[in-house]
Amino acid sequence: MNKEIDALNVADLTYNEAGLIPCIVQDASTKDVLMMAWMNAETVQRTLDERTTWFFSRSRNKLWHKGEESGNVQRLVELRYDCDADTLLALVEPAGPACHTGQNSCFYRSFDL
Amino acid sequence: MNKEIDALNVADLTYNEAGLIPCIVQDASTKDVLMMAWMNAETVQRTLDERTTWFFSRSRNKLWHKGEESGNVQRLVELRYDCDADTLLALVEPAGPACHTGQNSCFYRSFDL
Repeated sequence: MNKEIDALNVADLTYNEAGLIPCIVQDASTKDVLMMAWMNAETVQRTLDERTTWFFSRSRNKLWHKGEESGNVQRLVELRYDCDADTLLALVEPAGPACHTGQNSCFYRSFDL
Repeated sequence: MNKEIDALNVADLTYNEAGLIPCIVQDASTKDVLMMAWMNAETVQRTLDERTTWFFSRSRNKLWHKGEESGNVQRLVELRYDCDADTLLALVEPAGPACHTGQNSCFYRSFDL
């Protein structure tokens, strides 16, 4: 994949009406898509500063450091954004399973085609 | 990645207040994440029935068959859903670039770490 480094500011991303932006999390080594969660401007900045993923929990209405309880932190390798700057893609090195079910990825089920 | 086939109905997915669910699109061969777009129940069903991605355009407020104009359709290989059933992951074989800029993936820019 081509890669360009831009001097975009965290504030220049496009957030939704709730101030959130979706972040897809992909394993940097296996390229498996692990999960999708939401960030606000503060957790985007923390993720960049601390090189570990932080999200905003819509159900608990609070910041959430991924792996804080489980130990399965995700070390940030790269943070990409899309052409509209309204979706993020975090490439990470996960310390353990991303899913609360214990599955490596939250996307472990498929529709029957 | 483990894989389970479930008899989930399209209506059983969790849609947001606007009746939409985010869908991550990944190249089934290269595993590059290509784009993220929104589906409603009707476009999830069409995607499954026609084995090509359909989305709901929030800006144009209409159904959108990916590649309809550009020819860059995405043949559906697998449609996964996450543990909460509120996010989809479509594995596809793309006929051409996913991004309107001509880039293969919409995620061609990164923050400078």
